[in-house]
Amino acid sequence: MRRVAVLGAGSWGTAFAKVMADAGRDVVLWARRPQIAAAINDRRANPDYLPGVELPPRLTASTNATRVLEQSDVVVLAVPSQTLRANLGHWRDLLPAGATLVSLAKGVELGTLKRMSEVISEVAAVPPSQVAVVSGPNLAREIAAEEPTATVIACTDHDRAVALQNACSTGYFRSYTNTDVVGCELGGAGKNVIALAVGIAAGMGLGDNSRASVITRGLAEISRLGVELGADPLTFAGLAGLGDLVATCSSPLSRNRTFGERLGRGETLAQAEEANHGQIAEGVKSCTSICELGARHGVELPIADAVRRVCHEGLSAAAMAKELISRAPKPE
Amino acid sequence: MRRVAVLGAGSWGTAFAKVMADAGRDVVLWARRPQIAAAINDRRANPDYLPGVELPPRLTASTNATRVLEQSDVVVLAVPSQTLRANLGHWRDLLPAGATLVSLAKGVELGTLKRMSEVISEVAAVPPSQVAVVSGPNLAREIAAEEPTATVIACTDHDRAVALQNACSTGYFRSYTNTDVVGCELGGAGKNVIALAVGIAAGMGLGDNSRASVITRGLAEISRLGVELGADPLTFAGLAGLGDLVATCSSPLSRNRTFGERLGRGETLAQAEEANHGQIAEGVKSCTSICELGARHGVELPIADAVRRVCHEGLSAAAMAKELISRAPKPE
Repeated sequence: MRRVAVLGAGSWGTAFAKVMADAGRDVVLWARRPQIAAAINDRRANPDYLPGVELPPRLTASTNATRVLEQSDVVVLAVPSQTLRANLGHWRDLLPAGATLVSLAKGVELGTLKRMSEVISEVAAVPPSQVAVVSGPNLAREIAAEEPTATVIACTDHDRAVALQNACSTGYFRSYTNTDVVGCELGGAGKNVIALAVGIAAGMGLGDNSRASVITRGLAEISRLGVELGADPLTFAGLAGLGDLVATCSSPLSRNRTFGERLGRGETLAQAEEANHGQIAEGVKSCTSICELGARHGVELPIADAVRRVCHEGLSAAAMAKELISRAPKPE
Repeated sequence: MRRVAVLGAGSWGTAFAKVMADAGRDVVLWARRPQIAAAINDRRANPDYLPGVELPPRLTASTNATRVLEQSDVVVLAVPSQTLRANLGHWRDLLPAGATLVSLAKGVELGTLKRMSEVISEVAAVPPSQVAVVSGPNLAREIAAEEPTATVIACTDHDRAVALQNACSTGYFRSYTNTDVVGCELGGAGKNVIALAVGIAAGMGLGDNSRASVITRGLAEISRLGVELGADPLTFAGLAGLGDLVATCSSPLSRNRTFGERLGRGETLAQAEEANHGQIAEGVKSCTSICELGARHGVELPIADAVRRVCHEGLSAAAMAKELISRAPKPE
């Protein structure tokens, strides 16, 4: 794993590209916008997404996907989950045979209800064992600042996970391998939805007791869904489940949590979107597909469903809170 | 369960007494200091521990344990864990036969390595089924402010847990029953130690990624210890494990976390104690007994052990962080 292509120059794509360059790989980052590629090549910076961070010389950028992908051993997909299928469709014929495909995206595809690694495997026509997933408590700006961070590299092919673990090992970025791809991906997708719920609670002025309960009960429902889909329950207790969720819910940098706070203060989805520079938080989309997955597999997801109704059916945050609090007392 | 005695008028004892009074019980609170009992009776306030909170008329106080305990159906023990044995020794002959004894204390007794419910059962000479434990994401000041809060009531006697659940049910306080007393108690005791570790990380200036990892790996090691002692692993994923830990680690109100922050900034144990009004945080004591429990049962507890060495063997916070980060890469 000497040459790495990273497709997508947002904050997480750029931060992960920096990690791999710092770990000694030659990394080329694909950016859609020429000015981002130019800033990376000329000034070693991506001021739009990682202001103030100096990028290493081993990391270069290009808007030319053909050039980025040629001879790469590792292809990292760092585009938003709902656009992954369309983007990968453009790139599929450029992918070097045998390259390890790595997903950084966290979501469940609307309509198909597929996880990102399933979309990759399908569109790229590679076996699932060639696709790996990176997930964990990984706030991009902290990693870019070289704060000590742990993560999970999941792949059904354990040897491939270990090779990737070695290829991205640096002093500040420590990875653990896992073969439970389903659990890691559901943990990541579910996290965005639960972070929205925690944000809604915070926006309503609820305290740490309530927020901790939403985190706990939210993770429990995502775990139940995961187990139904074949995941290992321990994955949800690990870095890609609990770890990712806690980091996201603690951080003022989290888009999903911040978006939820706006909804909790009574803003509409459109108002929150406008305040978020015209972007919808990932969880706003994932809550729909996750609830559909739950319905398909007969798993009750009261928190995700409440978030879905706040986002898409006009349920008020106050009604959501009342509903969740007034569920009948029962064993845990 | 009509008449309730609460022994200990600190913030959690007073807040829980208020919950039970709000739930319609007649509650008498035992306070060691006459001025606290007087403030509760005369001004419906406990300004030392819950400033600004108005206490309900059904809650009265006394320094006379005999009067407090007579005819009580429920006896709530709300004294610090390392003084529970001595305090209960004074009260044991006053306990009404058949009363449900409830522990609010979170710790493992130094020396004996017993959980609080074990100490109660032993000193009061009652079967374990007569002892219940309350644990969860329960910051006392939020409960006193009637913020919505969920908790776990654990008792090996399920019917007794349900009776207590009904006896403390109010609009803002929602409880779940559990028969896993071991898991709930270890979750509570372990939480104080992990909160110290998270505080140390925060005090050193480490970010949300690191802190989320400490929370995750810390809960994992306490779960492993609990399972070895016969606990249900799901308890640690629930409100008395994850929930309590996350609330404590998120809150600026947490004594253990704040104490850890001081150690992380390089203060000595004595300096941190002085800044904390001469009080040692609970986790400073529990880390020793929890590490001894781990050693006795052959469970590795790297985070608790690092906390123990920072507190009691002069390990620096920086050396602790370096040690935890540099453990060999491996599967999760």
